[in-house]
Amino acid sequence: MRSIVECIPNFSEGRRTEVVDQIVSAIKSTPGAVLLDRESDPNHNRSVVTFVAPPDRVVESAVAAAKRAAELIDLNKHTGEHPRMGSTDVIPFVPVAGVTMDDCVALARACGERLLSDLGIPVYLYEKAATRPERENLATVRKGQFEGIRDQITSSEARRPDFGEARVHPTAGITAVGARPPLIAYNVNLQTSDAEIANKIARAVRHQSGGLRYVKALGFELKDRGIVQVSMNMVNYEGTPWCRVFERIKREAARYGVAVVGSEIVGLVPQRALNSVADFYLQLEKFSEDQILEHRLAGAMEEAKA
Amino acid sequence: MRSIVECIPNFSEGRRTEVVDQIVSAIKSTPGAVLLDRESDPNHNRSVVTFVAPPDRVVESAVAAAKRAAELIDLNKHTGEHPRMGSTDVIPFVPVAGVTMDDCVALARACGERLLSDLGIPVYLYEKAATRPERENLATVRKGQFEGIRDQITSSEARRPDFGEARVHPTAGITAVGARPPLIAYNVNLQTSDAEIANKIARAVRHQSGGLRYVKALGFELKDRGIVQVSMNMVNYEGTPWCRVFERIKREAARYGVAVVGSEIVGLVPQRALNSVADFYLQLEKFSEDQILEHRLAGAMEEAKA
Repeated sequence: MRSIVECIPNFSEGRRTEVVDQIVSAIKSTPGAVLLDRESDPNHNRSVVTFVAPPDRVVESAVAAAKRAAELIDLNKHTGEHPRMGSTDVIPFVPVAGVTMDDCVALARACGERLLSDLGIPVYLYEKAATRPERENLATVRKGQFEGIRDQITSSEARRPDFGEARVHPTAGITAVGARPPLIAYNVNLQTSDAEIANKIARAVRHQSGGLRYVKALGFELKDRGIVQVSMNMVNYEGTPWCRVFERIKREAARYGVAVVGSEIVGLVPQRALNSVADFYLQLEKFSEDQILEHRLAGAMEEAKA
Repeated sequence: MRSIVECIPNFSEGRRTEVVDQIVSAIKSTPGAVLLDRESDPNHNRSVVTFVAPPDRVVESAVAAAKRAAELIDLNKHTGEHPRMGSTDVIPFVPVAGVTMDDCVALARACGERLLSDLGIPVYLYEKAATRPERENLATVRKGQFEGIRDQITSSEARRPDFGEARVHPTAGITAVGARPPLIAYNVNLQTSDAEIANKIARAVRHQSGGLRYVKALGFELKDRGIVQVSMNMVNYEGTPWCRVFERIKREAARYGVAVVGSEIVGLVPQRALNSVADFYLQLEKFSEDQILEHRLAGAMEEAKA
């Protein structure tokens, strides 16, 4: 099987299209990298780029993108709703095929070293690549944002970078580099206009307030549709299966006499996650991905090549 | 997207492994063909071989296999539980990627012509390739089996082959060649030892007795487990979606106070079929296969090559 790593760098620019274009070009022009998606949010003033590459090429692409971002984005002039601390704000490496989480942790470390040596940008390692427990959570790492970290980093041992001296890059700030499982952004829409019900259900299912371990959730109103939504990040769909999250929300909503109107996948999902949903609901006894025609075909093709 | 046709020839030999080996070798040695699966049943005295190939290569592989089967299998000496009429009994062509059902009908016709011209074996066209409505159903085509067809074919217009004179090949019989959607063999296991309940549910869900259009079903006892099973062929999972079949069975079983223990996929299923199950149960609002990471990746890879 071909080895593939997904990389989803976030850049602190969501308004100047020409800047994001140049960053995306830097990724596309490194051999082996394949762009899957790019999304810019002007309110957040932030762009999320998704690409895949073989493990021996993915760091090169990420560094090339961070180089362009450092040249083009000055954090001192950046404003936006989303918290940020670097021109390249975060770089997560995600195992997709033929690579382990440990491989991605090693890639995060290699990328961190390169950001420092090539670009002079200091680095925090986060999530599975974290070197201290409190750095597993990106929100904790980014606390205070560019300005706050710039002021505290010189004196606070807790804020010392994993790579680099105790100071931020004057314009490019500091970057969080990490490894994590694939994340699924998933929303469930509810047949009520009562926002409080969405909030209550979000609190019931999310880890932070006693719910499911790998679920982050918030309640929202969808004013144009007159309904509400539980908006989630499922940060580890093997640890907390998708079907349980959905069933939990349905049951909590029923407790208020509210039905599920539908649900939405935001961005991309791994095929394995969808397969696990079908496996659960069909009550399959011995499901294996090897029973999927396309899977068997891909395996047979690889064998034929070998 | 690479064009792929699946072909699942059935051969009237399930006991002599060395014979099946030679037939399988004939397939593997034609360029472009990739073997996915082979299964031999000694009671049925029948083997089912699954391979894929590009549309311009698949007929060559099927004919090569039928040639070996004609050399090695004499229907006059064949006994087994499964009905059969040819050493190569049936050859269905199934669209997998980048080909239409019409393409597969054309392949079936081309294959039929070759079986006659190269091997002297007459051919009935069946399912989507059928030239008369009554030949859409393979069971009708095969009625009377080798011996019955041999005796009736010379005098009955209804039994006239689509390719060839009105007589069977003396040892290789006659072959049904057709085109069909992917078939899913699927069993649902029920928490009761009462075989009559499985029979009643099978009758309720299958097309033949008033049920769902693209479902064939039979009830069975699983004596070793002390339970019963509704065993199905879903012959068109787009026409009759999988989730409806499963939900129907669950509801019918509940009418007898019987729970579903689990279910089983036999053989291979298309990925799209599993995705449609997840789509249904998650109540997704705007699901597209383009939201699947692997799908997007495959598309991006193809674009990069082009």
